[in-house]
Amino acid sequence: MRHFEQELEQLKGKLLEMSALVEAAVQRSVAAVVQKDRSAADQVFRDEERINALEMEIDEFAINLLATQQPLAADLRLVVAALKINTDLERMGDLSVTIAERAISLLSEPVIKPMMDIRHMSALVESMVRKSLDAFVANDADMARSVLASDDAVDSLRTASYHELISYMEKDPQNIPQALDLIGITRSLERIADHSTNIAEDVLFLVKGIDVRHHSEVR
Amino acid sequence: MRHFEQELEQLKGKLLEMSALVEAAVQRSVAAVVQKDRSAADQVFRDEERINALEMEIDEFAINLLATQQPLAADLRLVVAALKINTDLERMGDLSVTIAERAISLLSEPVIKPMMDIRHMSALVESMVRKSLDAFVANDADMARSVLASDDAVDSLRTASYHELISYMEKDPQNIPQALDLIGITRSLERIADHSTNIAEDVLFLVKGIDVRHHSEVR
Repeated sequence: MRHFEQELEQLKGKLLEMSALVEAAVQRSVAAVVQKDRSAADQVFRDEERINALEMEIDEFAINLLATQQPLAADLRLVVAALKINTDLERMGDLSVTIAERAISLLSEPVIKPMMDIRHMSALVESMVRKSLDAFVANDADMARSVLASDDAVDSLRTASYHELISYMEKDPQNIPQALDLIGITRSLERIADHSTNIAEDVLFLVKGIDVRHHSEVR
Repeated sequence: MRHFEQELEQLKGKLLEMSALVEAAVQRSVAAVVQKDRSAADQVFRDEERINALEMEIDEFAINLLATQQPLAADLRLVVAALKINTDLERMGDLSVTIAERAISLLSEPVIKPMMDIRHMSALVESMVRKSLDAFVANDADMARSVLASDDAVDSLRTASYHELISYMEKDPQNIPQALDLIGITRSLERIADHSTNIAEDVLFLVKGIDVRHHSEVR
């Protein structure tokens, strides 16, 4: 294996490490909400530092790779995609922190509604995070497409939950603060899904050489 | 001027064109809200296509620049920063569309509260967008720092408006849908401010060579 290829593998490995951390953060932030698990939220806050450090490390690594190897064509695009994916992953980490903060504010309140929709939505979102990175590492266009397909399902779940929460608020104004927290949580999950979609679009660009970001080819 | 420097200037010019479009979109989306101006919202929807096309064009231009010029050190970092800034600008365009959509949903409703806080917040956010790009083009660390300082002011305005809107909802459940739209609008403005902050951080990284993203040096 050429030195350059080794470095590319290292870069992919670091992104996988980052995505494993982010996936765990998403999972824990949702556990903090649905199981009222304060220690899960605290773990999310602690892991944020590691995620932030890794973001900077990956940026440095990719920039050094560009400087020392001066890759061309597909290799160059792969490194640029890695830089973009890195940014998306870090923002997903931030969104897990936002969810964990909402979880803390919900800890002391009696639950106004079953959390099944949040469980369901988060299971879908976690699988999107995992698949988008697997698609990147394996250069797998089909897997990237399956991520794009899930995004619509997440949006539908979020819209249904939004309307349900509005009706809880209208029924009893005492429900308003909690309903707003739950709306915030589903919105953060939706945004995590959007970031996975960005990653999947970058993968399709890499594999197929077409820019699907603002097209309808795969939707 | 070397050919490479000409190309860098072209890249900066394209980003300025993009940011002018985004700034106008933010401004129009807010006008659609506070002046109930449907045509302003429609213009935001129309301009989204141009912003999306420009995002892809700038990415292509930057990647070609990396491939053909193989820049090193500061020049390489500048091109990488341009790629990141491009992504942030496009997301700001998306957020203007979100605001314009909320504006449409508010068109037919009587106004429940004065819009002064949204005007105030959006004036601040628009200046952040402009300053963050000016800082990039002029390599101006002080201007970048002033963007970071404004971010806290935007967060405070958003928090104050959030609590006010909760009290409107609690007072009369009929206010809930409109208050949720207004909360969504201020949240989108806050996220546009966050993207300007990302850009300012990239500029500080370029100018000072230090990564302030997850530090407190400038806050």
